[in-house]
Amino acid sequence: MALNITQKLIKDHLVSGEMTPGREIGLKIDQTLTQDATGTLVMLELEAMELDRARTEASAQYVDHNLIQEDSKNPDDHLFLHSATRRFGLYHSRPGNGVSHPVHMQRLAKPGKTLLGSDSHTCANGCMGMLAMGAGGIDVAMAIAGEPFYVKMPKVWGIKLTGELPDWVSAKDVILELLRRHDVKGGVGKVIEYYGPGLESLSAMDRHVIANMGAELGATGTVFPSDKEIKRFLKEQGREDDWIELVPDDGATYDINEELNLSEIEPMIAKPSSPGNVVPVSEVAGTPIYQSYVGSSANPGYRDFAIAAEIVKGKHIAHGVSFDINPTSRQMLTDLVKESHIASLLSAGARLHQAGCNGCIGMGQAPASGRNSLRTTPRNFPGRSGTREDSVFLCSPETAAASALTGKITDPRTLDMKYPKVNDPKNPTIDVNLLDEPLPYEEAKNVKLEKGPNIASIPEMDEMPDHIEIPILLKMGDNISTDEILAGGARVLPYRSNLPEISKFTFEIIDETYYQRGKDTVDKGGHAVVAGFNYGQGSSREHAALAPRYLGLRVALVKDFARIHWQNLVNFGVLPLTFVNEEDFDLLEQGDVLEATGLREKIKQGTEFNMSVKGKNQEIKVRHALSERQIDIMLKGGIINWVKDRRVKS
Amino acid sequence: MALNITQKLIKDHLVSGEMTPGREIGLKIDQTLTQDATGTLVMLELEAMELDRARTEASAQYVDHNLIQEDSKNPDDHLFLHSATRRFGLYHSRPGNGVSHPVHMQRLAKPGKTLLGSDSHTCANGCMGMLAMGAGGIDVAMAIAGEPFYVKMPKVWGIKLTGELPDWVSAKDVILELLRRHDVKGGVGKVIEYYGPGLESLSAMDRHVIANMGAELGATGTVFPSDKEIKRFLKEQGREDDWIELVPDDGATYDINEELNLSEIEPMIAKPSSPGNVVPVSEVAGTPIYQSYVGSSANPGYRDFAIAAEIVKGKHIAHGVSFDINPTSRQMLTDLVKESHIASLLSAGARLHQAGCNGCIGMGQAPASGRNSLRTTPRNFPGRSGTREDSVFLCSPETAAASALTGKITDPRTLDMKYPKVNDPKNPTIDVNLLDEPLPYEEAKNVKLEKGPNIASIPEMDEMPDHIEIPILLKMGDNISTDEILAGGARVLPYRSNLPEISKFTFEIIDETYYQRGKDTVDKGGHAVVAGFNYGQGSSREHAALAPRYLGLRVALVKDFARIHWQNLVNFGVLPLTFVNEEDFDLLEQGDVLEATGLREKIKQGTEFNMSVKGKNQEIKVRHALSERQIDIMLKGGIINWVKDRRVKS
Repeated sequence: MALNITQKLIKDHLVSGEMTPGREIGLKIDQTLTQDATGTLVMLELEAMELDRARTEASAQYVDHNLIQEDSKNPDDHLFLHSATRRFGLYHSRPGNGVSHPVHMQRLAKPGKTLLGSDSHTCANGCMGMLAMGAGGIDVAMAIAGEPFYVKMPKVWGIKLTGELPDWVSAKDVILELLRRHDVKGGVGKVIEYYGPGLESLSAMDRHVIANMGAELGATGTVFPSDKEIKRFLKEQGREDDWIELVPDDGATYDINEELNLSEIEPMIAKPSSPGNVVPVSEVAGTPIYQSYVGSSANPGYRDFAIAAEIVKGKHIAHGVSFDINPTSRQMLTDLVKESHIASLLSAGARLHQAGCNGCIGMGQAPASGRNSLRTTPRNFPGRSGTREDSVFLCSPETAAASALTGKITDPRTLDMKYPKVNDPKNPTIDVNLLDEPLPYEEAKNVKLEKGPNIASIPEMDEMPDHIEIPILLKMGDNISTDEILAGGARVLPYRSNLPEISKFTFEIIDETYYQRGKDTVDKGGHAVVAGFNYGQGSSREHAALAPRYLGLRVALVKDFARIHWQNLVNFGVLPLTFVNEEDFDLLEQGDVLEATGLREKIKQGTEFNMSVKGKNQEIKVRHALSERQIDIMLKGGIINWVKDRRVKS
Repeated sequence: MALNITQKLIKDHLVSGEMTPGREIGLKIDQTLTQDATGTLVMLELEAMELDRARTEASAQYVDHNLIQEDSKNPDDHLFLHSATRRFGLYHSRPGNGVSHPVHMQRLAKPGKTLLGSDSHTCANGCMGMLAMGAGGIDVAMAIAGEPFYVKMPKVWGIKLTGELPDWVSAKDVILELLRRHDVKGGVGKVIEYYGPGLESLSAMDRHVIANMGAELGATGTVFPSDKEIKRFLKEQGREDDWIELVPDDGATYDINEELNLSEIEPMIAKPSSPGNVVPVSEVAGTPIYQSYVGSSANPGYRDFAIAAEIVKGKHIAHGVSFDINPTSRQMLTDLVKESHIASLLSAGARLHQAGCNGCIGMGQAPASGRNSLRTTPRNFPGRSGTREDSVFLCSPETAAASALTGKITDPRTLDMKYPKVNDPKNPTIDVNLLDEPLPYEEAKNVKLEKGPNIASIPEMDEMPDHIEIPILLKMGDNISTDEILAGGARVLPYRSNLPEISKFTFEIIDETYYQRGKDTVDKGGHAVVAGFNYGQGSSREHAALAPRYLGLRVALVKDFARIHWQNLVNFGVLPLTFVNEEDFDLLEQGDVLEATGLREKIKQGTEFNMSVKGKNQEIKVRHALSERQIDIMLKGGIINWVKDRRVKS
């Protein structure tokens, strides 16, 4: 049977299940990626599992999120992570090396492999002919320990690219156009696979841009072929030997089919406050801006910075605009320096920041109150920038640079200049020191973990009770992101290894009283939350499941879930339920008490059961989507208990 | 009479008083400098004074401290400052342009002028043949409004430089050697004036290094001649016309005389936690480090970064070391980029940060708990790095770079290499867009101040009461710095325009209960604090006077004061008293109640009077050093009341 690339990758790595969309499959994971915001917890989990050494082909730990060192917490975590990579045999990327996704692409990504990462944009490396997926930290910990990754077999959504991008239009506009068409849940349960003649004109890094923001469509992954462009890219990295060809079989088919003519795309922009809120730039042109921001894993390429530099070269940015440049990799920054693009940006008035995630994750570069920020980042969820009522637009580097010059949102095609051509650097840098290699085992086994005073063990969790009678503490609408459940940003992230502290920020953006109300339920059997569609979209951070669980969250009852957050809830023993009849959502109010007896048996017996609303004489039909394995995990109260239990039994 | 340069500068600007050391003189101020951490308050003060337009020759506002934008507070301040510079006719330096002192030197400093700045390192521009002094923000506000600056006529301390610096030894080692000799109060009441043949080999930027850290000696200022090197520097900046020659008259003398043979200096280092704790590097060589940090106004020059780059070029820093590069000016960073020094640093593993003050003021780059940090910054007061129990060493860029390579404190002379020669950039950048010019008056007068939600007016202050009966809330030792009175750093500084909020951090490092205990005294007549020598050394931040005042501080009784903090206390109506008999310090305990009746008259009548210790039958003889003008200010409760009162009367 003729297979598409996604099917080939899955078939090659299948360890359990059938390749039927919607059914759980187990996949062998070849590579993992962790970043520091999620990685500290992953390393603590590896320690709790008593792992001796990573069992993957390559596992890398990147320090890119928490780079602001206002006190000892972040640097202590950096040292802890460094010691953990030495102990467990991982690659280590130092602070200042840049964002995990482009650095991984440069140094480790390999066509034909699977990559699991505790960062929702792990999918970016799908540009390399990999099956690259974001997951909760504990899933990645399991993968590092050699366990398979369990996921529902996705549908494969084939997108045929034709034509060629016009001047002033680039890869970011391609993915924004797809977000305009399909919004933030258009990709749920799917892997997007690109093919067709349009690929010819998209470089590996352009494909990274498109694959990266597949996460914004809610997709499980994005897959590009490994063709001669990927060969060229690997050669440029001194890794030609890592190349294999990976293309669809002749006659391969897709579960869903779409076509996109690149020639017809124009500059696009996502308006506040959703990546799916996309219109042509021309529709909002003239809107004044406070900030223009270039960088992040959604525009990490040499050309993304170089084109911005060429556009502003010899000119100066508008008065009062903050033009923020966030380089994405040390190696690339070195080339941008050598090719004088950084000098052009500085002379035009840009602020050059350290290579890393920075403002994309709310670590610096927050906009002023009530001002518009224009960014090449992947997300503009409310408050993610660090400013509470922010107004963030997402666009291409061309649009960002043009707007920096004028001080207002500007369709770059209206600039009075020829579209600059950006050439590759003449002698591209290969920074072989970028990653520290795993230590040899004999040395690694004696390494001690260096735990600063802010690093705390994960508290024990109780198992699923048989009877629940729990109040609904929050009723929320659609598209609640993990940023709203537990914000990122510099105020919160430093506590990621300290659950009692970080839990204080839970649901803070939605309801500041949640923390205390939640805590009060811990000794009384816990509580529930209710929400609409696409609950838990966005960042993969598992704290968004772990912290509410710590505060007594037992059940999340919603219209549907974002994939990664659903998985995180399961991992930490929060029962994720959906309404069988969506209109029941309207029956429930904050304060209602949900009741279920014989719950453990109900979960085991089937996927649907009833819960009653106390004192209201109402029955709500609910559904879980747990596999046998997940039912076992859920009843034990989460995956840590489950792993412990397995160790005792084996 | 033959005059030295300091005397010439003072004579040229004298508007009141006599040039007798220790007596108050009034000086006309030609230029002012404010940075953002102190500047927001200065601008609010200008607004309160209803100033129409700056009356100086040049006043510049630099945004260099609060560059970390984790939420809207800092960017809101940036916009407020931008609007205020437009309203009041000031120069404006955008965030990302770099540290005030080197940028001011490049674009505005002029030999023969006076410069007053609300930053304790304002003295750095003494390298340009200026009388450049740090002061409290309100003094600078007064200067911008055209009022003279009042200061005690300093003694002039002539330091004759002979010889030439050996290889691997640079300007930083010169000032560290002086700190070794004289410690942190060796310069109190003095202007340090350098002369002699040793000057030949010190560039303008080398002199900046030495003048900058005159602040660490406690000096009122540091003066270098304006000679052919300054002419060369100004020419390089495209400002040759701003040059005048300024050298001592033949036969000029000094109040104090010292000689320093540059040839005999070796690499020096200040150990934790005082800039005066200096030993030769060789004495602590081998100590392991977590961090090596290059930058700040204490090593701001092109050569300071270039020499570090040359030392690490083609090599790689030691495992686990954070090698932080903090560029000091956009213009210089552009040259460092063009001359490929930045590429060398990046390839060696450096973290390149935004141009600005950054870690020097605790805004990022804090070291890990219990680890050693090696820095080219001017200060290592406890906690200033952001890490509570920090361990910061101060050194030259040569020592910092050598130590980054080895991972331990290293005398650079022991590296197995020839001392690299650093040439000036071939075509030095002149960034004429670096500063926004003052708006024309007709345009400026209509500009509205843009106040974000975190910017609050200064509350009203009461006048000095005639009877006090106030408890001593704290008894402290010697050398208490303003960092200990009110810390800098990212947690605190964002509240600098919000007194009720920022006051919560007062004396927090010394005693966390102070805030509440102080607040409780506000309605009961206030309280006192007692301390030893050199009270209030360090940063000029006036919040260290304003915040305790807001919490009820009425009297600071100490062995002696650091100059700027003393002035700030006067300005905000806190009575600064010293012991007539230093041994009385030992009589007092925390909790003792100080009593004085007829206090207003006592202050007016003379400089010495008695206070009694309630219930202890003790009399303490105290002294104030207030001028007539300052007595008037003190009785009115501070300078804001005094200015208001003058406006009513005029």
